[in-house]
Amino acid sequence: MNPEKLSPLDPLIHSRIRLGILSILASVEEATFNYLKETIGTTDGNLSANLMKLEESGYISITKTFSGKKPKTTCRITKKGLDAFRTYLRNLEAYLKFKK
Amino acid sequence: MNPEKLSPLDPLIHSRIRLGILSILASVEEATFNYLKETIGTTDGNLSANLMKLEESGYISITKTFSGKKPKTTCRITKKGLDAFRTYLRNLEAYLKFKK
Repeated sequence: MNPEKLSPLDPLIHSRIRLGILSILASVEEATFNYLKETIGTTDGNLSANLMKLEESGYISITKTFSGKKPKTTCRITKKGLDAFRTYLRNLEAYLKFKK
Repeated sequence: MNPEKLSPLDPLIHSRIRLGILSILASVEEATFNYLKETIGTTDGNLSANLMKLEESGYISITKTFSGKKPKTTCRITKKGLDAFRTYLRNLEAYLKFKK
């Protein structure tokens, strides 16, 4: 056998919650905290922690505003995040279509 | 927005190393420890730990034989592992082709 090496997968993206976040944000202009929570199916705490990690890495930007008296958190993917997400998808493809 | 929920991803599969192992084993009859190590690009210890986890879950079977005096470890995916891998791929697809 002549192994063709698999590329590493960006660990910042290869977590179910963060993959969900980036996948959604790559397909919309922006998304609210609640929309992400409902769509991904996770808790406030878990989503917050993962959003913070992505923001710290510069993959997303987070804006906090008020809708009346209610706080509203809106997230967008950054250019850096989109580039990283595309690289991740390219690398992942090799895992999903592995041929000997 | 009308959220269409994302399905959970089997955490036994959604790790880079285990995804690599199952992806390779789904495409070949069997693979040796060394082949998996080279192709996935990991260490003996890390590969061993992940193989054990997959074996304990019944996703793969591991056979240890001797090639002369050298021990040889061979891995195969089981029916249960293949079913789980296919379900994983189906669920993952929603993450990769997300549309609002």
